[in-house]
Amino acid sequence: MKKAPSESTLGKAIRCKAALCRKAGEALVIEEIEVASPKACEVRIKILCTSLCHSDITFWKMNGSLPRIFGHEAIGVVESVGENVDEVKEGDYVIPFFLADCQDCVDCNSEKSNMCTQFPFDPKPGMPRDGTSRFRTLNGEVIYDFLGVSSFAEYTVVDISHVVKVSSEIAVDKACLLSCGVTSGVGAAWKVAGVHKGATVAIFGLGTVGLAVAEGARLCGASKVIGVDLNPDKFEIGKKLGLTDFINPKECGERPVSEVIKEITNGGADYCFECIGLASLMDEAFKSSRQGWGKTVILGVEMHGAPLSIGATELLRGKSIIGTLFGGIKGKSDIPLLVKRYLNKELHLDEFITHEVDFQDINKAFDLLLQGKSLRCIIWLDK
Amino acid sequence: MKKAPSESTLGKAIRCKAALCRKAGEALVIEEIEVASPKACEVRIKILCTSLCHSDITFWKMNGSLPRIFGHEAIGVVESVGENVDEVKEGDYVIPFFLADCQDCVDCNSEKSNMCTQFPFDPKPGMPRDGTSRFRTLNGEVIYDFLGVSSFAEYTVVDISHVVKVSSEIAVDKACLLSCGVTSGVGAAWKVAGVHKGATVAIFGLGTVGLAVAEGARLCGASKVIGVDLNPDKFEIGKKLGLTDFINPKECGERPVSEVIKEITNGGADYCFECIGLASLMDEAFKSSRQGWGKTVILGVEMHGAPLSIGATELLRGKSIIGTLFGGIKGKSDIPLLVKRYLNKELHLDEFITHEVDFQDINKAFDLLLQGKSLRCIIWLDK
Repeated sequence: MKKAPSESTLGKAIRCKAALCRKAGEALVIEEIEVASPKACEVRIKILCTSLCHSDITFWKMNGSLPRIFGHEAIGVVESVGENVDEVKEGDYVIPFFLADCQDCVDCNSEKSNMCTQFPFDPKPGMPRDGTSRFRTLNGEVIYDFLGVSSFAEYTVVDISHVVKVSSEIAVDKACLLSCGVTSGVGAAWKVAGVHKGATVAIFGLGTVGLAVAEGARLCGASKVIGVDLNPDKFEIGKKLGLTDFINPKECGERPVSEVIKEITNGGADYCFECIGLASLMDEAFKSSRQGWGKTVILGVEMHGAPLSIGATELLRGKSIIGTLFGGIKGKSDIPLLVKRYLNKELHLDEFITHEVDFQDINKAFDLLLQGKSLRCIIWLDK
Repeated sequence: MKKAPSESTLGKAIRCKAALCRKAGEALVIEEIEVASPKACEVRIKILCTSLCHSDITFWKMNGSLPRIFGHEAIGVVESVGENVDEVKEGDYVIPFFLADCQDCVDCNSEKSNMCTQFPFDPKPGMPRDGTSRFRTLNGEVIYDFLGVSSFAEYTVVDISHVVKVSSEIAVDKACLLSCGVTSGVGAAWKVAGVHKGATVAIFGLGTVGLAVAEGARLCGASKVIGVDLNPDKFEIGKKLGLTDFINPKECGERPVSEVIKEITNGGADYCFECIGLASLMDEAFKSSRQGWGKTVILGVEMHGAPLSIGATELLRGKSIIGTLFGGIKGKSDIPLLVKRYLNKELHLDEFITHEVDFQDINKAFDLLLQGKSLRCIIWLDK
């Protein structure tokens, strides 16, 4: 399916619906807004579907620049492009992503980094090149963007460094998941940890990201993938996604989880992942890693701003800790590889979709995630 | 020069001199002792020279198992071997080292680890296989060993997993340095960090280990090697060993060292090394590393037992921390490579030797190191 740009919108602002956060932590309000025409190096995208990630919730709770359009996991069709955009054209299926991949700076050109230095990650609003917004209320009030993506809207404008074209062979709701959470988890196992065949893995926190780490570890050929979560239902879902073992900390009595992991891995897991964002769990993950080469990967954003505190002497025994945003993934080159693996029936994606709602019911997606009932809830803008 | 074992000592205890620590922190006392015959898988070594490392000082200050024979940097000649030792024979030049390399366990067989799991590192005395000592006073009192090496003695017994044969072409005082400190520093740059050609490096603490990191970084082709130390004289010595820049924290005024490093490396060093053992410096080293791929290597043993505390959010930007003992070096395979590089005039060793004393003056070596006057002081047992 290809859609030509409407002549009535090309080069003009588009009026469409968006879900606005007008007050921190309160239900989003669907309003008619104006989405400006894309500037140079920008792409205007008609969003097909979007999903809700924990980071949206984190920033939605904070007081900050409001009104704001959240959402950063999505797929859409290019409606029009600004000057100097040759990479995609009207009608292309594209995935926007929050971490720039300019393909030009020293980091984007390095195999070791996915942290673009030309357009550094910054959760403050503003488009990467001029710091302004493409959204206005019908009264002309500025609406702030979120991570340069803002997918809780029928149309959005995204910088070309945050967009990748994908095959239209993949169902859009599955492709949408590759925009952030699932990709971060799979990437953390694949690109950051470099899980080796036969490795042992422990994952703290089995939300979408943690389960995606399991899926990534499975794809890398891990022999044992231990999930740690307070909710035993997660093990059932996780079994399809690579989990082989499960630990419920509530059932460990006086024993620290790290001791249980050391026991079932014969000295500690080769790779440990913290996917919650609690300093105490980061330390427990570190303790669960084997000496010699145990690597702990931190994916969770510490929710209280606490520092990570670990035993310096234990570190000396060859252990390491590494942090990552977006699982070490470079959006432009790596997301298409994941699409391909899904189409080849290697990568599981369907299992992460637990719910779907129409756009007008977007607040239900928030309720489900806040209550811990969903993994990913697809929000349809155009179905 | 080959020395045949004396028929009078083969299979018998040897009476010889050793420098005993009889009271924590007090001058060593040279006494006549008995060194038992090597048991199975052990080697009795006539020490030619030894040197003093900071770890000796650390343990010498502690109350613990006494009397004890310290010393773990040395070279000697095999006097005799126990059963099942085929790897070395009488007359071979050998370097003993503190971190076992059994060449048999999963760690010794892995490229990722130098932490032998068959004979794990433990600073408590006792030979690796039976936990006992090979030293006695003439009254029959047990003298405890140090790290299974105890080189402050004319003869010692070392497990074969802690011994490597080296070429007799290298001068023994230079070879002696490869037993611990220099090797740890060079190895940290070479094996643990994997410093790449053109990389930027920052080193906190310019003792022997820190200067050896500079030398290792130079050998790896680093373009900028910044030393951080309170003593500006260290820069003069360090220039020959790879240092290109020097920061004296006393001269930074209100500015944290990490800011100065970020400025001269355009965003942070690719690799940072902490060679002192202070949690605050470990954090400063981490802050000095670049986002994207900056790696901080911890070599220092935290002197107050404090935990390492770092910003969890900063870690997320692709930074990592790794700890190491013995710089990731596997004694058996890597020390001979370093000998070869010295003989090829690639690796500097001579510059680390600032003093030498005869065995009876061993306490002078302690004074020099305690006063910060020496890098390595060679202690001659047989000159």
